[in-house]
Amino acid sequence: MYPFNAEKLAMLMEQAGLDLILATTRHNVRYLTGGYYYHFHAKFTRIGTSQYLPVVGLPRGRFADAFYIGTIGERGQIEAEGLWIENRAEIGRGTIPVAERAAAEIARRGLERGRIGLELPFFPADAYATLQRALPHATFVDATPVLDELRAIKTPQELALLRSVYDRTAQAILATFASGTPGVTTKELARRVQREMGQRDLNFLWVFTCAGPSYLRAPSNQTWQPGRVLHLDAGGEDGDYLADLCRMGCLGRPSALANELHAACLAVQTKVRSLIRPGVPCNELLRAGEHAIAEGPYAELGRFIAHGIGMVSHEQPVITPQNSRPLEAGMVLSLETEYKHPEVGHVKIEDAVAVTADGCEGLGDQGREWQIV
Amino acid sequence: MYPFNAEKLAMLMEQAGLDLILATTRHNVRYLTGGYYYHFHAKFTRIGTSQYLPVVGLPRGRFADAFYIGTIGERGQIEAEGLWIENRAEIGRGTIPVAERAAAEIARRGLERGRIGLELPFFPADAYATLQRALPHATFVDATPVLDELRAIKTPQELALLRSVYDRTAQAILATFASGTPGVTTKELARRVQREMGQRDLNFLWVFTCAGPSYLRAPSNQTWQPGRVLHLDAGGEDGDYLADLCRMGCLGRPSALANELHAACLAVQTKVRSLIRPGVPCNELLRAGEHAIAEGPYAELGRFIAHGIGMVSHEQPVITPQNSRPLEAGMVLSLETEYKHPEVGHVKIEDAVAVTADGCEGLGDQGREWQIV
Repeated sequence: MYPFNAEKLAMLMEQAGLDLILATTRHNVRYLTGGYYYHFHAKFTRIGTSQYLPVVGLPRGRFADAFYIGTIGERGQIEAEGLWIENRAEIGRGTIPVAERAAAEIARRGLERGRIGLELPFFPADAYATLQRALPHATFVDATPVLDELRAIKTPQELALLRSVYDRTAQAILATFASGTPGVTTKELARRVQREMGQRDLNFLWVFTCAGPSYLRAPSNQTWQPGRVLHLDAGGEDGDYLADLCRMGCLGRPSALANELHAACLAVQTKVRSLIRPGVPCNELLRAGEHAIAEGPYAELGRFIAHGIGMVSHEQPVITPQNSRPLEAGMVLSLETEYKHPEVGHVKIEDAVAVTADGCEGLGDQGREWQIV
Repeated sequence: MYPFNAEKLAMLMEQAGLDLILATTRHNVRYLTGGYYYHFHAKFTRIGTSQYLPVVGLPRGRFADAFYIGTIGERGQIEAEGLWIENRAEIGRGTIPVAERAAAEIARRGLERGRIGLELPFFPADAYATLQRALPHATFVDATPVLDELRAIKTPQELALLRSVYDRTAQAILATFASGTPGVTTKELARRVQREMGQRDLNFLWVFTCAGPSYLRAPSNQTWQPGRVLHLDAGGEDGDYLADLCRMGCLGRPSALANELHAACLAVQTKVRSLIRPGVPCNELLRAGEHAIAEGPYAELGRFIAHGIGMVSHEQPVITPQNSRPLEAGMVLSLETEYKHPEVGHVKIEDAVAVTADGCEGLGDQGREWQIV
């Protein structure tokens, strides 16, 4: 009935002691509505002297009594697309009237003294102050970790979208390498990545463009020169799911040293991937990557990290030395191995894998070999 | 010396009683730095369970003592591009450590009991609570109107960028009309607008796609049919300056009625434009548009509105019945005339003009005539 795992959310709210969640960020509004977000504000929220602030309100244990607060302008889209939340309010522009209405909805449900979960790192300060004034006996806490955890295991539909976003992001990166010419600036290369993503119906999020032997990763007037390596570490997005990949190119043949560093990246990635399956603790994965670096060449120049990814970069699972949480099927991990060598530059491969029932599946695995232009 | 009108900002801060401003939104950080914003986060700020939050701190009357709070990752870009603020801090990820550092910078300047301007509708609630705890004797007020007013008059450089963004946005809209075929869905047209913008190095912000006789403006499975009108009301952006334009197309020849409504739109727009020059009160402009609607055909179906535009849609000047502020050279206005007729659909022309010394200059004026496909 609900477009998310209602049982899991109820349990997470219970554990966090939340009586009600107000979800307000684009990612979580879309997740909780099952794909809906007002198209007008999907790429920007600022208008006039305030911003668009949609609200999905979910009272614990009675999601049927959920409410949605939007603007009058989105009624047509909601009617065309459907929205499972039937209790809907249309509020004029600005964060404060939305917060006033949210407070009224909370009070109407008898939760004036409740523990209310907000997405605090994203919730506007003026709306927060309004809620505090309107509900002086309520307690407001951060619900970001609860919603982050709710999204930890990807559904087959989410995995299908991620597969597509990763493939298209890889293709955009490879097309950019192929367009390279001696002396092209990294700023021009960045513009090219953005265009190549646009042609594949991706939203461009970022690109780090690092032309060796410099370590400068910001697009700039630095140029890509013959015999030099280039890394393109880019993010592309569609439907609020993102890919995060790094690939290596060289204008002409890479040096023996560059080859060694690139091969070392792939060896570490391969080693880590071979261990990934449900049940493996996150910190064991990290240790395995660090161990592979330490045992390989140029150990002191290398680094391995990993993080969950999906709607947000660095979402669950968190891969830290402290986190022994076991991997589960449906988790998606970004794996990054890199070496910084003063003669070569910054050599890096970043990949993603989805954890499967008995191992893992690479996402966007194209072009992990040298892109020789 | 400063990349903004320092005298005006000092005066606005004086009037608002602000001892210090913390600017934190992308638009205002870029404006106050003279173009700098960390490229990695220019399209998204969310990472992990928090977000990127840069800070430009400006103490009143001593902008030389300004400070910038960013992350370690942006050091390379700052060194490559330069940043006039020499007092810079690099903080780890997340809003709370940034707020703690901002509080320390405020205290270091002896403003623990000061009146601090924040961009409250955009400032994260957890950072706000952190500031309140760290500076219990300070007063925090909304500085959004001050920064909005600071940006009211565009420089020649800003106007040049806006001219280019408007031209490219108009071209993207016209190319989308030209691609139209009978039965194309408005969702497909929306995707096309996004691609056409991408090819012109614009960030797509939004498009309303309204195929008559329906009034549904959200991209959907509705189709554009022969003899039917279509409006494309789209926003494109580059360097954080945006264009907002609406153009009309028809698959084949528009009906006589559609022609009348379109001609009425242009007549109202022309009438209003003929009055624009420095010194004209904003509300007189609005009255002139409303009067032109009332005197023309289908008056009861028509509507005229106008708003300032630049980095934000609906920025200064605000065009309301109450606002008698006189126009000034360098202001940029978006003018919108529309008619909703049940047999035709939603006919709308939206244009922009920059106020000049003795009149106004149209921005992106291409394709105001019917786009007949």
